[in-house]
Amino acid sequence: ESITFGVLTISDTCCQEPAKDKSGPRLKQLIAESFTNAQVIESIVPDEKDHIQRVLRKWIDRKELRVILTTGGTGFAPRDVTPEATRPLLEKECPQLSLVITLESLKKTQFAALSRGLCGIAGNTLILNFPGSEKAVKECFETVRELLPHALHLIGDEVSLVRKTHA
Amino acid sequence: ESITFGVLTISDTCCQEPAKDKSGPRLKQLIAESFTNAQVIESIVPDEKDHIQRVLRKWIDRKELRVILTTGGTGFAPRDVTPEATRPLLEKECPQLSLVITLESLKKTQFAALSRGLCGIAGNTLILNFPGSEKAVKECFETVRELLPHALHLIGDEVSLVRKTHA
Amino acid sequence: ESITFGVLTISDTCCQEPAKDKSGPRLKQLIAESFTNAQVIESIVPDEKDHIQRVLRKWIDRKELRVILTTGGTGFAPRDVTPEATRPLLEKECPQLSLVITLESLKKTQFAALSRGLCGIAGNTLILNFPGSEKAVKECFETVRELLPHALHLIGDEVSLVRKTHA
Ligand code: NA
Repeated sequence: ESITFGVLTISDTCCQEPAKDKSGPRLKQLIAESFTNAQVIESIVPDEKDHIQRVLRKWIDRKELRVILTTGGTGFAPRDVTPEATRPLLEKECPQLSLVITLESLKKTQFAALSRGLCGIAGNTLILNFPGSEKAVKECFETVRELLPHALHLIGDEVSLVRKTHA
Repeated sequence: ESITFGVLTISDTCCQEPAKDKSGPRLKQLIAESFTNAQVIESIVPDEKDHIQRVLRKWIDRKELRVILTTGGTGFAPRDVTPEATRPLLEKECPQLSLVITLESLKKTQFAALSRGLCGIAGNTLILNFPGSEKAVKECFETVRELLPHALHLIGDEVSLVRKTHA
Repeated sequence: ESITFGVLTISDTCCQEPAKDKSGPRLKQLIAESFTNAQVIESIVPDEKDHIQRVLRKWIDRKELRVILTTGGTGFAPRDVTPEATRPLLEKECPQLSLVITLESLKKTQFAALSRGLCGIAGNTLILNFPGSEKAVKECFETVRELLPHALHLIGDEVSLVRKTHA
């Protein structure tokens, strides 16, 4: 049985010029390399609360869509509203998971203190806000990769995410 | 002068078969071993927001009841609603205390990232959400034990929690 | 171009006897030592939500006022309401920045777990809740000093905070 990841790039720039999106495709590649039975759907939206929430709501409602990774919009700039768009949709917040992502990021750069990403659960979907850089999404994904199968097993009580075994 | 701890086990399973509750009795024992002037009252409720809140409200209103330790219901499963039941009752959140508990737990297992427990204050009562396993409650209790006397002194402005001195 | 810091001492005691305020003046000195183009305005209010919010609102609305550092009222005592006064005024919370401040504080004392300070953004203003002791404000300020120029650059999209170079 296959599960679906949603990768949502949140960026005014990338929405106008999708070729500039490096972190969305990077996440797609990391998912494919890590899990044998995962599908990925992608979208790009501008840094607008309404646009972000419209995609999140649609994806949360899809039963086979079990993980949403957002990239971008987590910083301190006026247009960075990803956490504010995400929070009202969460039924459960997972601050300890955000903590672990931040602790790992802080090993690389003190500027991880300026990310504001959330983690939480809505329906049967785990939602993780990652920063907007290709380097950051790789680090964040690697931090949560080991935790995802167990997390999804708990959230869904039914589905398994199969880790790839590297020979 | 004695103070009272409330130990609330939150678990569908233990509510049906109280003999299966290992973490509640373990907490009772840890409290007795640590503080000379502490009483403990216990209860077991299912993973239902209403049931949890009914006991929390009753205990918050009891003047001599100064600490509530919950065990269970902090994870990612659909029935895990302890933080969602706790948050609306808190007058003050204590995220830094949750952080310290999580940092200690992470030294033992990366899966501490999948706990969602809160800490906060309601009236003169400190409320701490611990996970549901006997091992986890022991670790969490040991993390907060040194902090509790000072925390309660600050919250209550009147009462002292007397640490046991081990000869 | 100069920017303004607001230093708000929150303390019943210091409000009655301003000479007892050590942490406010200390913050003023630290700002002057660290940034060449910074002005500081100061105020002292009692531990009352209304008083705190009145000053915060006024300062948030001043365009040149870009950072508010509060000191005091972050603990567990009944009168400690600084985070509760701050949160409703924030448009964006910055929990990862609070985390970094706490991690540094924990290197000095485990009692940093009993602070409850928030960090967040309102308008073009970054608001940081520091504890009430002179020692703590020094440590917290030193933790954020390196991050402030970049943080303000992001928030404001226009202003630069010039670090002093120590010869
Ligand atoms: Na879904």
